[in-house]
Amino acid sequence: MTAYTLILLRHGQSTWNEKNLFTGWVDVDLSDLGRQEAVRGGELLKEAGILPDVVHTSVLRRAITTANLALDTCDRHWIPVRRDWRLNERHYGALQGLDKAATRDKYGDEQFMLWRRSFDVPPPPIEVGSEWDQTDDPRYAGTEVPRTECLKDVIERFMPYWEGPLQEDLRAGQTVLVTAHGNSLRGLVKHLDQISDDDIAGLNIPTGMPLVYTLGEDMMPTRPGEYLDPEAAAEAAAAVAAQGQRH
Amino acid sequence: MTAYTLILLRHGQSTWNEKNLFTGWVDVDLSDLGRQEAVRGGELLKEAGILPDVVHTSVLRRAITTANLALDTCDRHWIPVRRDWRLNERHYGALQGLDKAATRDKYGDEQFMLWRRSFDVPPPPIEVGSEWDQTDDPRYAGTEVPRTECLKDVIERFMPYWEGPLQEDLRAGQTVLVTAHGNSLRGLVKHLDQISDDDIAGLNIPTGMPLVYTLGEDMMPTRPGEYLDPEAAAEAAAAVAAQGQRH
Repeated sequence: MTAYTLILLRHGQSTWNEKNLFTGWVDVDLSDLGRQEAVRGGELLKEAGILPDVVHTSVLRRAITTANLALDTCDRHWIPVRRDWRLNERHYGALQGLDKAATRDKYGDEQFMLWRRSFDVPPPPIEVGSEWDQTDDPRYAGTEVPRTECLKDVIERFMPYWEGPLQEDLRAGQTVLVTAHGNSLRGLVKHLDQISDDDIAGLNIPTGMPLVYTLGEDMMPTRPGEYLDPEAAAEAAAAVAAQGQRH
Repeated sequence: MTAYTLILLRHGQSTWNEKNLFTGWVDVDLSDLGRQEAVRGGELLKEAGILPDVVHTSVLRRAITTANLALDTCDRHWIPVRRDWRLNERHYGALQGLDKAATRDKYGDEQFMLWRRSFDVPPPPIEVGSEWDQTDDPRYAGTEVPRTECLKDVIERFMPYWEGPLQEDLRAGQTVLVTAHGNSLRGLVKHLDQISDDDIAGLNIPTGMPLVYTLGEDMMPTRPGEYLDPEAAAEAAAAVAAQGQRH
């Protein structure tokens, strides 16, 4: 029976995760901890002997640097690289650059959680020309970029990339590494694990922790996805869930 | 008149440059100085406003990391990446892993300079299965890899890549960055600057210093190539020329 191997890797902590700001498409760097997480991700791949033949990343620095560090660590720095904005984090609209706790205080728990976790309610759109707007960024030239997104929007722009370039490489027998973001990866996991629109709100993907799927001919998992370091993964997911709590 | 922009960047100092060992295809890392050089290369590109649209690297870590660092520095981390063994350093055959000064002492100045700088005399081939042999390296699967090379051999395997993927991207109007090695880049510069087989021995390309060519429709330079930091380039080239001196 044919089996395809897909590895998902959420980027390590960014400087804005650290500061508890909404990031979205703002192109922030990894924090030092984030770099360590990326290296640890590469070590886990190396120890497991699950080595990617090709890597797909978003066009955002924190995913790209995570891929570079992880691949360097598992001696796969030389594999082909493909990048696409469709793997980007959810566009957080007008919330980009705002403090998460302050936003919660200002708009209240309900509105805050709606923007963060609802399936189909996007935050207000970012204003063109405002500080964190990327309309004129050359990497998006020729692309009609969103000005805000809910998870449903992310899935809509992500799925053509899953059905296209990602499945193409998988069907060619390549072990595929996808280095991306909390919400683009949640979109893919929702599809693979057939999670409902309601239940996806409770799913948190830990940073820097390879999540390995074995897929069958129909490109669906033949068994549950597996974190290479399950204990650390559970701890990290709990930490992500705690984000945005008052503190 | 159409003009194409080509940027050549030799990787920064490696840990084996630092130790004065013959490296060739051995996949050593950058030294700390090498990382700084790569970042400086990116700064020079940024200051000059000459920003690559696509990067081509060898499959060796020192070139890949140099490209990653330089591109991250000039905010071009998101551009498409292409890699090929044809951009690799010259294969140094049985000399790989040997100390340059000790090799000079053992074989004498004449033989040493012949191996280092002659156009068409390769060192003895590396033994299959010996410490620094890469025959079984997965990155070369399906490739008939050389076991030693002279500069002429490097040019022969490099030119199809120049005439193929590199010119393809240039003709598509892309500013192309090639991050590679002393000898693969010497091969390309020899062709572009029409340097004779004898004179190429005297050409040294400094590390971490972007060399920019403007090419015409015939893919030949319309004016001499330009280092973005000419003063530092002259100093660095003199330092390379001094390598292998007794000390």
